[in-house]
Amino acid sequence: MAEVPITLTTDFGEGSPYVAAMKGVVLALNPNARLLDLSHTIPPQDLYHAAFFLRSALPYFPPGTIHVIVVDPGVGTSRAALYVETAGERLLVPDNGCWTPFAQTVAQPPVVVRLAEPRYWRPHVSATFHGRDIFAPVAAHLSLGLDYRLLGPPMSDWVRLAVPEPVLTAEQLGGEVIFVDAFGNLITNIPGEAFARLADQPVSIVLAERAVPCVCVRTYGEAPSGTLAALVSSVDTLEIAVTQGSAARMLGMGVGTAVTVSRLER
Amino acid sequence: MAEVPITLTTDFGEGSPYVAAMKGVVLALNPNARLLDLSHTIPPQDLYHAAFFLRSALPYFPPGTIHVIVVDPGVGTSRAALYVETAGERLLVPDNGCWTPFAQTVAQPPVVVRLAEPRYWRPHVSATFHGRDIFAPVAAHLSLGLDYRLLGPPMSDWVRLAVPEPVLTAEQLGGEVIFVDAFGNLITNIPGEAFARLADQPVSIVLAERAVPCVCVRTYGEAPSGTLAALVSSVDTLEIAVTQGSAARMLGMGVGTAVTVSRLER
Amino acid sequence: MAEVPITLTTDFGEGSPYVAAMKGVVLALNPNARLLDLSHTIPPQDLYHAAFFLRSALPYFPPGTIHVIVVDPGVGTSRAALYVETAGERLLVPDNGCWTPFAQTVAQPPVVVRLAEPRYWRPHVSATFHGRDIFAPVAAHLSLGLDYRLLGPPMSDWVRLAVPEPVLTAEQLGGEVIFVDAFGNLITNIPGEAFARLADQPVSIVLAERAVPCVCVRTYGEAPSGTLAALVSSVDTLEIAVTQGSAARMLGMGVGTAVTVSRLER
Repeated sequence: MAEVPITLTTDFGEGSPYVAAMKGVVLALNPNARLLDLSHTIPPQDLYHAAFFLRSALPYFPPGTIHVIVVDPGVGTSRAALYVETAGERLLVPDNGCWTPFAQTVAQPPVVVRLAEPRYWRPHVSATFHGRDIFAPVAAHLSLGLDYRLLGPPMSDWVRLAVPEPVLTAEQLGGEVIFVDAFGNLITNIPGEAFARLADQPVSIVLAERAVPCVCVRTYGEAPSGTLAALVSSVDTLEIAVTQGSAARMLGMGVGTAVTVSRLER
Repeated sequence: MAEVPITLTTDFGEGSPYVAAMKGVVLALNPNARLLDLSHTIPPQDLYHAAFFLRSALPYFPPGTIHVIVVDPGVGTSRAALYVETAGERLLVPDNGCWTPFAQTVAQPPVVVRLAEPRYWRPHVSATFHGRDIFAPVAAHLSLGLDYRLLGPPMSDWVRLAVPEPVLTAEQLGGEVIFVDAFGNLITNIPGEAFARLADQPVSIVLAERAVPCVCVRTYGEAPSGTLAALVSSVDTLEIAVTQGSAARMLGMGVGTAVTVSRLER
Repeated sequence: MAEVPITLTTDFGEGSPYVAAMKGVVLALNPNARLLDLSHTIPPQDLYHAAFFLRSALPYFPPGTIHVIVVDPGVGTSRAALYVETAGERLLVPDNGCWTPFAQTVAQPPVVVRLAEPRYWRPHVSATFHGRDIFAPVAAHLSLGLDYRLLGPPMSDWVRLAVPEPVLTAEQLGGEVIFVDAFGNLITNIPGEAFARLADQPVSIVLAERAVPCVCVRTYGEAPSGTLAALVSSVDTLEIAVTQGSAARMLGMGVGTAVTVSRLER
């Protein structure tokens, strides 16, 4: 039977000794553990980036996968450490809301447990590194078959992250850039479906109060090289891209930039 | 029996949610899949860098390894998606030629199949992310034992990448820098053997029309610290390095720089 | 039975074809090998950084783990290549001392063997890449059960890296910054225990001859956002941090900065 994968997502930076320590802790408890790096380049303490990352990546994993997520500005304070079961996935994550946008992609409410049983932690728990001292050992125990109900008491309230929501009308779509990928593509929170419906007829696209002439295309290669293009991203939202270039660099824009798509007057 | 490894090489950037999504897709189809990151720092859409990378790394892998390569400027256009069998390795790669320099390292012609059977893809295929929607699921199916002949029809023509070829005479070797590694070493396309033969006697080395006084050595430690050295790289070509320093930074040179090695007049 | 993990730590840079080649070499010899990336972002040839990394990360791994460490300014020279057994871990590492601070964390002397049996190496050994040609194949052979005594003769002398030691008195603690993490936290070599004892009463903290007003706290969240804080790091030493900010950037300081903690006169 397949050993369940344990994925790691942190803001510790590539090649961090902190990530290496977490891997060691997991393997010391479960020598068969299957560790998988998802990302260690979440910008420091950026819960919004983490939320986008989790919502974009987690839906593709097989049910039961264990995801350890350590973006944890409140480490060592009274903030809770959580076990969450949602959309078939199992998450170990600080109570800071970075996982709630992912949980909202499904109708069923999550199962949430507060990690409260030190017997599943490292014997000495530091005040600054719960990734190593709490989350990693709990992940190992879960991968060995531990029942999550032994981890602590169920919770019914937790921090929710309010991510910016788009404002959609029949004539206009308002939203913002929520992620810039390595190509410099600007990924917005405007639903691709709504954009495609509106862009059936001529539209104007305004970024940061500046009209940006975009070609509306299905994929990058349909716009001439160096041209601004508007298309439906791989996460099914409006994306502003430059074919064989970087929209972020060309426009000097990034996360938080306001985006408006309006139907043009005839 | 060993589960066959599936390697991932992309230009998505370290920690990209796109890479994470691909890993999820593979594991959802084959929970036992053995995923291995090769590189996610291929510069965006740089087919020449990808070609150097594949030619340098793939020859070391055991036969039958599945390599998923997603450097894909033409995603969503009519460019084909390929299954390639060459030099014992199995590649899943867009038809953009980044794999052909690797295939040319062996005499036997490659087996090439056009991925044309949507039953092995994700049910919904986006126009912008075939790594997740086509290449990852096909890799998972192959790792489960699927016969590649079921993936689509064989192809006899495909895009070939013309990589810069060195010009070699008995008196002079002309080539260029094709890769700069993390140490700032300038890796050229001039065969190490040809260089070693010529450098048996005094030579002049010219980079970008500038004579560069190099010590000819066998390894870095043989040149004094901070000194420019010419040696045979680990990929068996001429390399220009600075012992305990960066040749790229010292010379202000990089990929594409012309390199000439000439026998000196006595 | 669990396949023993083989970890990789290098200064080759993220996404390097050199790392990929090493992975291929290991898998070609042991198709079941379990490869684990620890870090490929050790700064080029920085033995002190490597020493800090190993000392911070290796203690958490299960006994018998094989660690391949390639930070190797002396590659191809007469420097020895070593097999080291210390603190329960197995290391393959050039004889440059980067592992000795880790070995000093335990009382028992290490077992050290000089890699001298080419039968366990690649048939052709380059002068510039022993990671691929010597260390990787030896790791694969060890993971297949090879007795380390067959690798070469035992050694009783080796390079020792002199890492900066703190100077501790009852009234004053002197040390330096030895690592800056991705958050910009300044990790010093002053023992956390000694700091906690002294900071029981008011102390002054001086970095690079500049008095730095720090709040002494247990964890980041206890200091107001943007404030300099002194606390015990996750590696049990004094750490200077800025809550939700970067101490390195705020102070313009980094590795090597002198740090003094003094009891304040009443």
